[in-house]
Amino acid sequence: MSMRVFAARPEPGAPAILDPDESHYLRRVRRAADGAALELIDDQGGLWRATVLGGDARRSELRLDAAIPVPAPARELVLLLGLHEAAATLDLLPGLVELGVAAIAWVRCARSQHGPPSAARLDRVLRAAQRQCGRPRPPALLGPLTLAEAAALRPDLPGHFAWEQRRGERDDLALVGGARLLIGPEGGLTSDEAETLKAAAFVPLALGPYTQRSGTAALVGLARLMFARAPA
Amino acid sequence: MSMRVFAARPEPGAPAILDPDESHYLRRVRRAADGAALELIDDQGGLWRATVLGGDARRSELRLDAAIPVPAPARELVLLLGLHEAAATLDLLPGLVELGVAAIAWVRCARSQHGPPSAARLDRVLRAAQRQCGRPRPPALLGPLTLAEAAALRPDLPGHFAWEQRRGERDDLALVGGARLLIGPEGGLTSDEAETLKAAAFVPLALGPYTQRSGTAALVGLARLMFARAPA
Repeated sequence: MSMRVFAARPEPGAPAILDPDESHYLRRVRRAADGAALELIDDQGGLWRATVLGGDARRSELRLDAAIPVPAPARELVLLLGLHEAAATLDLLPGLVELGVAAIAWVRCARSQHGPPSAARLDRVLRAAQRQCGRPRPPALLGPLTLAEAAALRPDLPGHFAWEQRRGERDDLALVGGARLLIGPEGGLTSDEAETLKAAAFVPLALGPYTQRSGTAALVGLARLMFARAPA
Repeated sequence: MSMRVFAARPEPGAPAILDPDESHYLRRVRRAADGAALELIDDQGGLWRATVLGGDARRSELRLDAAIPVPAPARELVLLLGLHEAAATLDLLPGLVELGVAAIAWVRCARSQHGPPSAARLDRVLRAAQRQCGRPRPPALLGPLTLAEAAALRPDLPGHFAWEQRRGERDDLALVGGARLLIGPEGGLTSDEAETLKAAAFVPLALGPYTQRSGTAALVGLARLMFARAPA
């Protein structure tokens, strides 16, 4: 695993300064010495090869050696995620960062029994995932929204939703650009919610023959969309 | 969530008998009374609508009402999984059951630092996943194998592997029938291992632009294969 730290982008030629949290991570957790090579994620979506110049566990300086080209995901995917237990949401989040999801909107569904995780916990999990996977910009987090509000978000992108009643069927998926995927909470969507989505031109997406928990459904559905073929 | 229990398939017309573990689950955990409707997973891959006839938390009897057609996954997928931490393997397992993976072989890779989870833990996690997702037959579990042994398993199925050095590239995936997917351990495959796989006609599979943990890579890769288009 590459070593990656976060800092504000410095003026050209100036060193980047790590704050106490990042300096602690660099010096105590990763035990990096002066001269160590690593990657820096800046606050403008940039990724850099960098070298530790000096400092300590409260403040460290890095030299930026070269910009690393940041790869883009194949498609812009927006996940509309029915709120479920905070711990399950936080477990799912790193996979969504790794896959390259552009935005995640929390949706209060009929069977949602929980609010979103706290901003502090979300931030901690997002940062750890970015550090691990090398993605400089985290997904945008939106909401919580009602289902109707969620269905009206980004209407320029075709909408899909996981719908258990259709799970045995096949569909023929083809996409030009990005897409939206709605995943219900544990317990699934109600029939009324499915009707609301269909009225907003959302289409059921086949995910396999067996019941999937929300986390599996989200990754399988997003993988289908991310790698869908272009129309013939 | 439907209530599901496990029992040996009875003779036609005879009741199914739940053992103490399953009777405890039925009566104490799910608090099912006589007359309750549920589903039964038998020991021959069958799924049934059933009714609780009588008994208690040590031994209960069920009437089998009707066989439920068991849906099949779109493809036969074999996952060759580089051994990593047992807890991470057990976390991943339910998703593999839900997605419909046919078989999982543990592979001792160069960077594997752990053995497979114990048979008892695997069995417990598989059963819970089957109960939850309604899949009557669990995936076959094989190994541990060496990488060379794993690469020689089911040579009739096209082989793919997750290879981080290729992660920015696109590939054009098309499949007639089933497939094999090899996922390395945490830390990834070595170059030698990638060469071994290529020599055995395994092809790198693109999973996205960022580093994925093994669990994400397995689900994303399997979803790509499960829903790959047929050749034009």
